[in-house]
Amino acid sequence: MAAKDRFHDVVKSALIKDGWTITHEQFQIDYGDVQMQIDLGAERLLAAELNGEKIAVEVKSFIAPSTIYEFHTALGQFLNYRSALRVNEPERIPYLSVPSEIFEEFFRRRFIQEVIQEHKLNLLIYNVEQEVIVTWIKLSNTAK
Amino acid sequence: MAAKDRFHDVVKSALIKDGWTITHEQFQIDYGDVQMQIDLGAERLLAAELNGEKIAVEVKSFIAPSTIYEFHTALGQFLNYRSALRVNEPERIPYLSVPSEIFEEFFRRRFIQEVIQEHKLNLLIYNVEQEVIVTWIKLSNTAK
Repeated sequence: MAAKDRFHDVVKSALIKDGWTITHEQFQIDYGDVQMQIDLGAERLLAAELNGEKIAVEVKSFIAPSTIYEFHTALGQFLNYRSALRVNEPERIPYLSVPSEIFEEFFRRRFIQEVIQEHKLNLLIYNVEQEVIVTWIKLSNTAK
Repeated sequence: MAAKDRFHDVVKSALIKDGWTITHEQFQIDYGDVQMQIDLGAERLLAAELNGEKIAVEVKSFIAPSTIYEFHTALGQFLNYRSALRVNEPERIPYLSVPSEIFEEFFRRRFIQEVIQEHKLNLLIYNVEQEVIVTWIKLSNTAK
């Protein structure tokens, strides 16, 4: 199984344990006039619902050799997803999922924390071994 | 020569023709507590000066199979560079350089235009064949 599929399955399993219903294993964001199918390089997005709350979860493994480079992509992807959701489905909240070890080692650094605050990223921190959600960090309440 | 080196050289040549002095062929952004040397995957940043104005130019080829995926990375990288410059060198203006064909085909789309406006990206549009700058689009005046 490719590493990115493994992380996708771990986050899916963690969401289910947390009570969420997975509504889309491969959620497609509608960017309007930008073709959907060209988002080939991206990991599959998970969509889930719980008590009427809807989320879209970007799964990032952060196993690439350059963590800051993967963070560039994760940030841009999150912001583009949020901009697209704002138009098409503003009640669905986007989250960037991050393995807990990467969160502790990398995301706690001051520069990364400042970027998270600046852009009001929502994070879902998960434990890869136990396949559970450790923390939700919700800085913006809607895709707006 | 690797494709990304070729585009780097084209943008460098276009800047020189436009009167700029290249001060750094491989400008290093200081992210504070995030290690510099791990930004391995990134294309080299150009730094230039003209009449006291300082710029940092992110060179993107947009030749990857998925243009939207490359745009995710370009956006995240631009915003992280801007956040880092704001702390360390706020008078240096960051630009994302885009080949004119990609600008016409992709960046003129409504979704991309909205993202550019939302995040106030500065763009430098260049002609690859002629190695000249076609247009500067400056939406933010400082790294702030």
